[in-house]
Amino acid sequence: MAAPQYKLTYFDVRGRGEAARLMFALAKQDFEDQRIQGGLATVKSTTPQGFLPVLETNEGKISQTTAINTYIAEKFGFMPDTAYEKAQAISVMLTLNDLTGRISSQLYMPLVYKVMPVPEDVEEKKKTLAEEINTCLAFIENLSNSGSKFIFSDKISVADIFLFTIMETQRQVLPELNSDNEWFLKSV
Amino acid sequence: MAAPQYKLTYFDVRGRGEAARLMFALAKQDFEDQRIQGGLATVKSTTPQGFLPVLETNEGKISQTTAINTYIAEKFGFMPDTAYEKAQAISVMLTLNDLTGRISSQLYMPLVYKVMPVPEDVEEKKKTLAEEINTCLAFIENLSNSGSKFIFSDKISVADIFLFTIMETQRQVLPELNSDNEWFLKSV
Repeated sequence: MAAPQYKLTYFDVRGRGEAARLMFALAKQDFEDQRIQGGLATVKSTTPQGFLPVLETNEGKISQTTAINTYIAEKFGFMPDTAYEKAQAISVMLTLNDLTGRISSQLYMPLVYKVMPVPEDVEEKKKTLAEEINTCLAFIENLSNSGSKFIFSDKISVADIFLFTIMETQRQVLPELNSDNEWFLKSV
Repeated sequence: MAAPQYKLTYFDVRGRGEAARLMFALAKQDFEDQRIQGGLATVKSTTPQGFLPVLETNEGKISQTTAINTYIAEKFGFMPDTAYEKAQAISVMLTLNDLTGRISSQLYMPLVYKVMPVPEDVEEKKKTLAEEINTCLAFIENLSNSGSKFIFSDKISVADIFLFTIMETQRQVLPELNSDNEWFLKSV
Protein backbone atom coordinates (compact mmCIF):
# COMPACT_ATOMS: atom_id res chain seq x y z
CA MET A 1 0.00 0.00 0.00
CA ALA A 2 1.34 3.41 -0.91
CA ALA A 3 2.05 5.81 1.93
CA PRO A 4 -0.90 8.12 2.51
CA GLN A 5 -0.57 11.39 0.68
CA TYR A 6 -1.69 13.43 3.68
CA LYS A 7 -1.11 13.07 7.39
CA LEU A 8 -2.71 15.36 9.94
CA THR A 9 -1.18 15.43 13.41
CA TYR A 10 -3.19 16.98 16.22
CA PHE A 11 -4.47 16.23 19.71
CA ASP A 12 -7.34 13.76 20.11
CA VAL A 13 -9.92 16.55 20.14
CA ARG A 14 -11.77 18.49 17.46
CA GLY A 15 -10.46 22.02 18.11
CA ARG A 16 -8.17 23.37 15.42
CA GLY A 17 -7.89 20.03 13.60
CA GLU A 18 -11.49 19.16 12.92
CA ALA A 19 -12.09 21.41 9.89
CA ALA A 20 -9.17 19.71 8.10
CA ARG A 21 -10.55 16.25 8.95
CA LEU A 22 -14.02 17.24 7.76
CA MET A 23 -12.76 18.62 4.45
CA PHE A 24 -10.84 15.40 3.76
CA ALA A 25 -14.01 13.44 4.59
CA LEU A 26 -16.23 15.64 2.39
CA ALA A 27 -13.71 15.30 -0.45
CA LYS A 28 -13.53 11.51 0.10
CA GLN A 29 -9.76 11.88 0.37
CA ASP A 30 -7.90 9.32 2.48
CA PHE A 31 -5.56 10.76 5.06
CA GLU A 32 -3.72 9.57 8.14
CA ASP A 33 -5.47 11.03 11.19
CA GLN A 34 -2.69 10.97 13.78
CA ARG A 35 -4.19 11.83 17.16
CA ILE A 36 -1.44 12.11 19.73
CA GLN A 37 -2.12 10.86 23.22
CA GLY A 38 1.05 11.69 25.12
CA GLY A 39 1.01 15.47 24.91
CA LEU A 40 2.79 17.82 22.56
CA ALA A 41 6.23 16.79 23.85
CA THR A 42 5.95 13.44 22.07
CA VAL A 43 5.90 15.07 18.62
CA LYS A 44 7.18 18.61 19.19
CA SER A 45 10.62 18.03 17.67
CA THR A 46 9.05 16.81 14.41
CA THR A 47 6.86 19.90 13.95
CA PRO A 48 7.94 22.93 11.90
CA GLN A 49 7.18 25.41 14.69
CA GLY A 50 6.67 23.43 17.88
CA PHE A 51 2.88 23.47 17.77
CA LEU A 52 -0.07 21.57 16.32
CA PRO A 53 -1.91 20.94 14.06
CA VAL A 54 0.61 20.00 11.40
CA LEU A 55 -0.32 18.70 7.95
CA GLU A 56 2.25 16.55 6.21
CA THR A 57 2.02 16.56 2.41
CA ASN A 58 4.21 15.15 -0.35
CA GLU A 59 5.62 18.66 -0.71
CA GLY A 60 6.41 19.27 2.96
CA LYS A 61 4.88 20.00 6.35
CA ILE A 62 2.46 22.88 6.90
CA SER A 63 1.82 24.48 10.29
CA GLN A 64 -0.65 27.22 11.34
CA THR A 65 -4.32 26.19 11.33
CA THR A 66 -5.43 28.76 8.76
CA ALA A 67 -2.59 27.83 6.41
CA ILE A 68 -3.51 24.14 6.66
CA ASN A 69 -7.19 24.84 6.08
CA THR A 70 -6.44 27.14 3.14
CA TYR A 71 -4.24 24.47 1.57
CA ILE A 72 -6.88 21.72 1.82
CA ALA A 73 -9.58 24.14 0.68
CA GLU A 74 -7.54 25.13 -2.39
CA LYS A 75 -6.84 21.49 -3.25
CA PHE A 76 -10.37 20.16 -2.78
CA GLY A 77 -12.66 22.99 -3.85
CA PHE A 78 -13.63 24.57 -0.53
CA MET A 79 -12.12 27.98 -1.29
CA PRO A 80 -14.56 30.61 -2.59
CA ASP A 81 -13.94 31.80 -6.14
CA THR A 82 -13.00 35.47 -6.00
CA ALA A 83 -9.99 37.17 -4.39
CA TYR A 84 -12.40 39.17 -2.24
CA GLU A 85 -14.27 36.13 -0.94
CA LYS A 86 -11.03 34.21 -0.41
CA ALA A 87 -9.76 37.09 1.72
CA GLN A 88 -13.02 37.17 3.70
CA ALA A 89 -12.84 33.39 4.23
CA ILE A 90 -9.35 33.87 5.67
CA SER A 91 -10.58 36.79 7.79
CA VAL A 92 -13.41 34.64 9.19
CA MET A 93 -11.02 31.79 10.00
CA LEU A 94 -8.50 34.06 11.70
CA THR A 95 -11.21 35.73 13.75
CA LEU A 96 -12.65 32.38 14.87
CA ASN A 97 -9.16 31.08 15.57
CA ASP A 98 -8.38 34.06 17.82
CA LEU A 99 -11.74 33.68 19.56
CA THR A 100 -11.41 29.96 20.18
CA GLY A 101 -7.90 30.54 21.52
CA ARG A 102 -9.29 32.92 24.13
CA ILE A 103 -12.21 30.61 25.01
CA SER A 104 -9.85 27.65 25.25
CA SER A 105 -7.23 29.27 27.48
CA GLN A 106 -9.72 31.05 29.74
CA LEU A 107 -12.52 28.47 30.01
CA TYR A 108 -11.90 25.08 28.39
CA MET A 109 -8.54 24.60 30.11
CA PRO A 110 -9.81 25.17 33.68
CA LEU A 111 -13.43 23.99 33.28
CA VAL A 112 -13.38 21.22 30.69
CA TYR A 113 -9.85 19.79 30.59
CA LYS A 114 -9.20 20.79 34.21
CA VAL A 115 -5.51 21.38 33.57
CA MET A 116 -5.43 24.69 35.41
CA PRO A 117 -7.22 26.20 38.40
CA VAL A 118 -10.63 27.76 37.84
CA PRO A 119 -10.09 31.54 37.84
CA GLU A 120 -11.90 33.53 40.52
CA ASP A 121 -13.57 35.72 37.91
CA VAL A 122 -14.81 32.78 35.83
CA GLU A 123 -18.37 34.11 35.63
CA GLU A 124 -17.09 37.45 34.38
CA LYS A 125 -14.95 35.67 31.80
CA LYS A 126 -17.95 33.64 30.59
CA LYS A 127 -19.97 36.82 30.14
CA THR A 128 -17.18 38.57 28.25
CA LEU A 129 -16.55 35.59 25.98
CA ALA A 130 -20.26 35.10 25.27
CA GLU A 131 -20.30 38.72 24.11
CA GLU A 132 -17.22 38.13 21.98
CA ILE A 133 -18.93 35.14 20.35
CA ASN A 134 -21.90 37.33 19.48
CA THR A 135 -19.63 40.04 18.09
CA CYS A 136 -17.80 37.47 15.96
CA LEU A 137 -21.05 35.99 14.64
CA ALA A 138 -22.41 39.45 13.86
CA PHE A 139 -19.23 40.15 11.88
CA ILE A 140 -19.75 36.93 9.88
CA GLU A 141 -23.44 37.61 9.36
CA ASN A 142 -22.66 41.11 8.17
CA LEU A 143 -20.25 40.03 5.45
CA SER A 144 -22.38 37.12 4.28
CA ASN A 145 -24.51 37.33 1.18
CA SER A 146 -28.10 37.64 2.33
CA GLY A 147 -30.26 34.78 1.16
CA SER A 148 -27.36 32.44 0.51
CA LYS A 149 -27.30 29.07 2.21
CA PHE A 150 -23.71 29.46 3.36
CA ILE A 151 -21.60 32.53 4.07
CA PHE A 152 -20.60 33.33 0.49
CA SER A 153 -23.03 31.35 -1.64
CA ASP A 154 -25.05 28.15 -1.71
CA LYS A 155 -21.78 26.22 -1.94
CA ILE A 156 -20.06 25.34 1.33
CA SER A 157 -16.65 26.91 1.91
CA VAL A 158 -13.80 26.41 4.34
CA ALA A 159 -15.10 29.35 6.37
CA ASP A 160 -18.47 27.61 6.90
CA ILE A 161 -16.73 24.37 7.84
CA PHE A 162 -14.41 26.06 10.33
CA LEU A 163 -17.33 28.00 11.81
CA PHE A 164 -19.27 24.77 12.22
CA THR A 165 -16.43 22.93 13.97
CA ILE A 166 -15.70 25.77 16.39
CA MET A 167 -19.36 26.47 17.23
CA GLU A 168 -20.34 22.81 17.48
CA THR A 169 -17.56 22.22 20.02
CA GLN A 170 -18.53 25.32 21.95
CA ARG A 171 -22.19 24.27 21.99
CA GLN A 172 -21.30 20.86 23.37
CA VAL A 173 -18.69 21.73 25.94
CA LEU A 174 -19.97 25.05 27.27
CA PRO A 175 -23.61 25.30 26.13
CA GLU A 176 -24.24 28.21 28.46
CA LEU A 177 -22.22 30.44 26.12
CA ASN A 178 -24.59 29.61 23.29
CA SER A 179 -25.83 32.26 20.98
CA ASP A 180 -29.12 32.51 19.16
CA ASN A 181 -27.39 34.28 16.30
CA GLU A 182 -28.63 33.09 12.92
CA TRP A 183 -25.14 32.07 11.78
CA PHE A 184 -24.59 30.05 14.90
CA LEU A 185 -27.80 28.14 14.28
CA LYS A 186 -27.05 27.72 10.57
CA SER A 187 -23.63 26.39 11.41
CA VAL A 188 -24.77 23.74 13.86
CA MET B 1 -11.86 62.32 -10.43
CA ALA B 2 -13.20 58.85 -9.72
CA ALA B 3 -13.13 57.65 -6.13
CA PRO B 4 -10.04 55.56 -5.45
CA GLN B 5 -10.67 51.86 -5.83
CA TYR B 6 -8.78 51.01 -2.63
CA LYS B 7 -8.47 52.75 0.71
CA LEU B 8 -6.22 51.45 3.47
CA THR B 9 -6.89 52.72 6.99
CA TYR B 10 -4.19 52.22 9.60
CA PHE B 11 -2.16 54.11 12.16
CA ASP B 12 0.61 56.42 10.95
CA VAL B 13 3.25 53.74 11.38
CA ARG B 14 4.51 50.86 9.23
CA GLY B 15 3.54 47.89 11.41
CA ARG B 16 0.76 45.74 10.02
CA GLY B 17 -0.12 48.19 7.23
CA GLU B 18 3.19 48.60 5.45
CA ALA B 19 3.14 45.39 3.40
CA ALA B 20 -0.19 46.44 1.86
CA ARG B 21 1.18 49.90 1.04
CA LEU B 22 4.32 48.39 -0.48
CA MET B 23 2.37 45.96 -2.67
CA PHE B 24 0.21 48.79 -4.01
CA ALA B 25 3.39 50.78 -4.72
CA LEU B 26 5.11 47.83 -6.42
CA ALA B 27 1.98 47.22 -8.52
CA LYS B 28 1.77 50.95 -9.37
CA GLN B 29 -1.82 50.87 -8.09
CA ASP B 30 -3.23 54.12 -6.68
CA PHE B 31 -4.82 53.82 -3.25
CA GLU B 32 -5.92 56.14 -0.49
CA ASP B 33 -3.44 55.81 2.36
CA GLN B 34 -5.53 56.93 5.34
CA ARG B 35 -3.24 57.29 8.35
CA ILE B 36 -5.28 58.10 11.40
CA GLN B 37 -3.84 60.51 13.93
CA GLY B 38 -6.43 60.56 16.70
CA GLY B 39 -6.26 56.97 17.86
CA LEU B 40 -8.45 54.00 17.03
CA ALA B 41 -11.53 55.60 18.63
CA THR B 42 -11.83 58.06 15.74
CA VAL B 43 -12.54 55.28 13.22
CA LYS B 44 -13.48 52.25 15.34
CA SER B 45 -17.21 52.38 14.56
CA THR B 46 -16.52 52.26 10.81
CA THR B 47 -14.35 49.11 11.00
CA PRO B 48 -15.75 45.59 10.52
CA GLN B 49 -14.23 44.27 13.75
CA GLY B 50 -13.08 47.26 15.79
CA PHE B 51 -9.43 47.00 14.81
CA LEU B 52 -7.00 48.10 12.10
CA PRO B 53 -5.76 47.79 9.42
CA VAL B 54 -8.89 47.82 7.25
CA LEU B 55 -8.86 47.72 3.46
CA GLU B 56 -11.86 49.21 1.70
CA THR B 57 -12.54 47.81 -1.76
CA ASN B 58 -15.37 48.21 -4.25
CA GLU B 59 -16.69 44.88 -2.95
CA GLY B 60 -16.55 45.70 0.77
CA LYS B 61 -14.22 46.18 3.70
CA ILE B 62 -11.62 43.58 4.69
CA SER B 63 -10.12 43.28 8.17
CA GLN B 64 -7.36 41.01 9.52
CA THR B 65 -3.85 41.79 8.28
CA THR B 66 -3.25 38.42 6.64
CA ALA B 67 -6.61 38.56 4.85
CA ILE B 68 -5.81 42.05 3.51
CA ASN B 69 -2.35 41.02 2.39
CA THR B 70 -3.68 37.84 0.75
CA TYR B 71 -6.30 39.86 -1.13
CA ILE B 72 -3.81 42.38 -2.53
CA ALA B 73 -1.35 39.60 -3.30
CA GLU B 74 -4.02 37.65 -5.24
CA LYS B 75 -5.06 40.75 -7.16
CA PHE B 76 -1.59 41.99 -8.06
CA GLY B 77 0.52 38.87 -8.53
CA PHE B 78 2.32 38.57 -5.20
CA MET B 79 0.84 35.19 -4.28
CA PRO B 80 3.00 32.17 -5.07
CA ASP B 81 1.61 29.78 -7.70
CA THR B 82 0.89 26.47 -6.00
CA ALA B 83 -1.57 25.62 -3.21
CA TYR B 84 1.38 24.42 -1.13
CA GLU B 85 3.36 27.64 -1.52
CA LYS B 86 0.25 29.76 -0.96
CA ALA B 87 -0.34 27.93 2.31
CA GLN B 88 3.28 28.42 3.33
CA ALA B 89 3.07 32.14 2.49
CA ILE B 90 0.05 32.37 4.79
CA SER B 91 1.88 30.37 7.46
CA VAL B 92 4.87 32.75 7.28
CA MET B 93 2.62 35.81 7.53
CA LEU B 94 0.67 34.43 10.49
CA THR B 95 3.87 33.50 12.30
CA LEU B 96 5.37 36.94 11.74
CA ASN B 97 2.09 38.59 12.72
CA ASP B 98 2.02 36.67 16.02
CA LEU B 99 5.65 37.49 16.66
CA THR B 100 5.33 41.20 15.94
CA GLY B 101 2.27 41.30 18.20
CA ARG B 102 4.35 39.98 21.07
CA ILE B 103 7.26 42.32 20.33
CA SER B 104 4.90 45.26 20.04
CA SER B 105 2.96 44.69 23.25
CA GLN B 106 6.00 43.73 25.34
CA LEU B 107 8.66 46.08 23.99
CA TYR B 108 7.54 48.69 21.44
CA MET B 109 4.64 49.93 23.60
CA PRO B 110 6.75 50.64 26.72
CA LEU B 111 10.13 51.40 25.11
CA VAL B 112 9.33 53.05 21.78
CA TYR B 113 5.83 54.52 21.99
CA LYS B 114 6.09 54.92 25.78
CA VAL B 115 2.38 54.33 26.29
CA MET B 116 2.88 51.92 29.17
CA PRO B 117 5.41 51.51 31.98
CA VAL B 118 8.66 49.69 31.24
CA PRO B 119 8.31 46.20 32.73
CA GLU B 120 10.79 45.22 35.43
CA ASP B 121 11.88 42.16 33.49
CA VAL B 122 12.47 44.09 30.27
CA GLU B 123 15.94 42.62 29.70
CA GLU B 124 14.54 39.11 30.09
CA LYS B 125 11.77 39.92 27.61
CA LYS B 126 14.30 41.25 25.11
CA LYS B 127 16.30 38.04 25.36
CA THR B 128 13.21 35.84 24.95
CA LEU B 129 11.93 37.81 21.98
CA ALA B 130 15.34 37.86 20.29
CA GLU B 131 15.28 34.06 20.55
CA GLU B 132 11.76 33.96 19.14
CA ILE B 133 12.90 36.09 16.19
CA ASN B 134 15.68 33.60 15.51
CA THR B 135 13.25 30.67 15.76
CA CYS B 136 10.86 32.37 13.35
CA LEU B 137 13.63 33.12 10.86
CA ALA B 138 14.92 29.55 11.10
CA PHE B 139 11.40 28.33 10.29
CA ILE B 140 11.27 30.57 7.21
CA GLU B 141 14.76 29.58 6.12
CA ASN B 142 13.87 25.92 6.51
CA LEU B 143 10.85 26.06 4.23
CA SER B 144 12.50 28.25 1.62
CA ASN B 145 13.86 26.83 -1.60
CA SER B 146 17.62 26.80 -1.32
CA GLY B 147 19.30 28.94 -3.92
CA SER B 148 16.23 31.02 -4.67
CA LYS B 149 16.43 34.78 -4.34
CA PHE B 150 13.23 34.98 -2.31
CA ILE B 151 11.50 32.48 -0.05
CA PHE B 152 9.73 30.48 -2.74
CA SER B 153 11.46 31.44 -5.97
CA ASP B 154 13.27 34.29 -7.68
CA LYS B 155 9.94 36.17 -7.81
CA ILE B 156 9.02 38.25 -4.78
CA SER B 157 5.91 37.15 -2.86
CA VAL B 158 3.69 38.64 -0.19
CA ALA B 159 5.59 36.58 2.40
CA ASP B 160 8.90 38.23 1.44
CA ILE B 161 7.29 41.66 1.53
CA PHE B 162 5.70 41.11 4.94
CA LEU B 163 8.98 39.70 6.28
CA PHE B 164 10.81 42.78 5.02
CA THR B 165 8.39 45.25 6.60
CA ILE B 166 8.39 43.52 9.98
CA MET B 167 12.16 43.00 10.13
CA GLU B 168 12.99 46.45 8.78
CA THR B 169 10.89 48.04 11.52
CA GLN B 170 12.43 45.83 14.15
CA ARG B 171 15.94 46.64 12.92
CA GLN B 172 15.26 50.36 13.14
CA VAL B 173 13.38 50.62 16.41
CA LEU B 174 15.09 47.94 18.49
CA PRO B 175 18.35 47.11 16.70
CA GLU B 176 19.65 45.24 19.72
CA LEU B 177 17.24 42.40 18.89
CA ASN B 178 18.84 42.02 15.47
CA SER B 179 19.60 38.68 14.05
CA ASP B 180 22.36 37.63 11.72
CA ASN B 181 20.06 35.02 10.19
CA GLU B 182 20.41 34.85 6.42
CA TRP B 183 16.71 35.55 5.87
CA PHE B 184 16.85 38.60 8.08
CA LEU B 185 19.74 39.97 6.06
CA LYS B 186 18.09 39.04 2.74
CA SER B 187 14.92 40.77 3.82
CA VAL B 188 16.51 44.08 4.78
